[in-house]
Amino acid sequence: MIKIFKKIIVFCFCMLCVLVFSQQNVDKKKIFSKVLNEEREIWISVPKSYHSSDISKAKYPVIYLLDAEINFDYVEPMLKYLARNPYPDMPECILVGITNTDRTRDMTPSKSSTKSPVNPTEILFENSGGAENFAAFIQTELKSFIQNNYRTENYSILLGHSFGGLFTINTLVEHPDYFNAYIANDPSLWWDKQIVNEKMRKALKDGKFSKAKFLYLSEADNKDNKSWNSDMIDGIQNFKTILSSQDKINYKHQFYEDEMHGTVSYPGNYNGLRFIFKGYRTDIKKLSKNPQLLETEYKAFSEKMGYQFLPSEEYLNFIINFMDKNKFEESKLYFEKFKLKIYQNSL
Amino acid sequence: MIKIFKKIIVFCFCMLCVLVFSQQNVDKKKIFSKVLNEEREIWISVPKSYHSSDISKAKYPVIYLLDAEINFDYVEPMLKYLARNPYPDMPECILVGITNTDRTRDMTPSKSSTKSPVNPTEILFENSGGAENFAAFIQTELKSFIQNNYRTENYSILLGHSFGGLFTINTLVEHPDYFNAYIANDPSLWWDKQIVNEKMRKALKDGKFSKAKFLYLSEADNKDNKSWNSDMIDGIQNFKTILSSQDKINYKHQFYEDEMHGTVSYPGNYNGLRFIFKGYRTDIKKLSKNPQLLETEYKAFSEKMGYQFLPSEEYLNFIINFMDKNKFEESKLYFEKFKLKIYQNSL
Repeated sequence: MIKIFKKIIVFCFCMLCVLVFSQQNVDKKKIFSKVLNEEREIWISVPKSYHSSDISKAKYPVIYLLDAEINFDYVEPMLKYLARNPYPDMPECILVGITNTDRTRDMTPSKSSTKSPVNPTEILFENSGGAENFAAFIQTELKSFIQNNYRTENYSILLGHSFGGLFTINTLVEHPDYFNAYIANDPSLWWDKQIVNEKMRKALKDGKFSKAKFLYLSEADNKDNKSWNSDMIDGIQNFKTILSSQDKINYKHQFYEDEMHGTVSYPGNYNGLRFIFKGYRTDIKKLSKNPQLLETEYKAFSEKMGYQFLPSEEYLNFIINFMDKNKFEESKLYFEKFKLKIYQNSL
Repeated sequence: MIKIFKKIIVFCFCMLCVLVFSQQNVDKKKIFSKVLNEEREIWISVPKSYHSSDISKAKYPVIYLLDAEINFDYVEPMLKYLARNPYPDMPECILVGITNTDRTRDMTPSKSSTKSPVNPTEILFENSGGAENFAAFIQTELKSFIQNNYRTENYSILLGHSFGGLFTINTLVEHPDYFNAYIANDPSLWWDKQIVNEKMRKALKDGKFSKAKFLYLSEADNKDNKSWNSDMIDGIQNFKTILSSQDKINYKHQFYEDEMHGTVSYPGNYNGLRFIFKGYRTDIKKLSKNPQLLETEYKAFSEKMGYQFLPSEEYLNFIINFMDKNKFEESKLYFEKFKLKIYQNSL
């Protein structure tokens, strides 16, 4: 009898392990932030190849995503799609989603003094102006946690929408060294008499952006999204004017006539990532007769990005298989050598 | 001792149930097809509200997705994003992904007689021409299975890419009654001397499309995707010419200059769904002063679609909460009555 029970327990335990393991495409971690004096929940997803035993252990760029509660579920497969072989448009990345506790406090760069039109003793968005603290939490605490617990490249991107877009652009202005690239979807640049626009104008004048930085800005059709104190259109329009006469930041703006404020993040994140990583994709067919092209293209891409990117080991394996299958012997040998040069400990 | 074992088993069993249940956003089912004389694996995902105990049991349109292996993981969250409150761009749908066994056989509408240029005794794509069988499997066997096991509306959409796009358009031509709407991403219309283009030309001439049908066609930049026997560009170009001079099919074509054949499905599916369901989204802010607008807009939308669509119970609850929160008492009462009219058994 006891033997049977033991067997049942072992079976159940094995099943549990299988299920727990198969669910682990999202790690939900709790981190206590000293800066914010509170616990924060972080959702982390690693790329498909992260745990692969077929390749050497690689490092990955990191994407920090605000408002994870509403964006994580679709950004996670979006990244996997964009990085998939044989047509990767971007490298595989680690996704770090930050969930909210007090969203307005964290995302806004100044304290609101706007009074309610209904009740003038009430200040709207009273608990605001915490962006500097929130940026410090991300930079000094969250990034350390991620770097210590995951294999990361020193390349990171910040993605935000609405107040999160405001925070994203404010972080670029205040701390251009914190991230390499920024995606701001329909940012609330109207905040506090467009204070972030003014800061951006000054930062550009002061030559603050010394290295190649990328900024993608999506804009929804906000003609029905005006209120007495928040003019989305005017805030973004002024920002566009400021950005149009500079060449320090690699900048792209896209207007989405079929999207509204609450829907624009999906195509905004897709097209923003495509903009940042433009030039990453190489054409495998062209490599058969001109194998050196791969190195040339990655060099040009890395130069544009201000950071060295290399073809992944999985992509090189794919190329080698392609050359083998199509009997391009010389190219196959070239890529085998090239792979060993980059991945000495290749399996 | 036995008591402790029993407790451990109960605990393990409960944990197993929790995990199995939480994994059930994808049902993987095996169906034996008499038409194809083989077993087929189908992946099914139901909408978030499907099992909700807060609303009455609803029925859902069904999206049939070809090449599920490479498309299911991102289409599933894409549907959830597009249907989410408070900005639904489409109704919640059941997603049915069809995985492949013999892709070329199933997707192609005629038997290939093209000889290999290297070895003239070898016929390329020899096992081809099974589209009619595959369409029969979907229509008579798979659809019955889905209708018998899930709560479905009689509205369905077919999504396919490449050979799957060819199959999609061929199904529209041969069986316009099988689906209400069709998305074909970069379809291989070059197949067999553009036989499907010729069939479409004839079908349009014969007035075969008597009801409103929707077709969305995405086209990648294929200038580097030509081979001696498959001219993607020419096939699609001729199809566009045929479709440009008709008004029976609600048709939209989009060219993607930054996408290649292997990457175009992602934005193609997103924009295809947006095209089909254009007019579904209503603006909640406008409803406060004009509550009748909701019914008017749903009526116009249903007319366009040739099928009755109603606002979901969850969306109506959202509207009622919005009216309550913003103190639009009359509108709140209007929508409470309206909801009871549609959902008599509302909870």
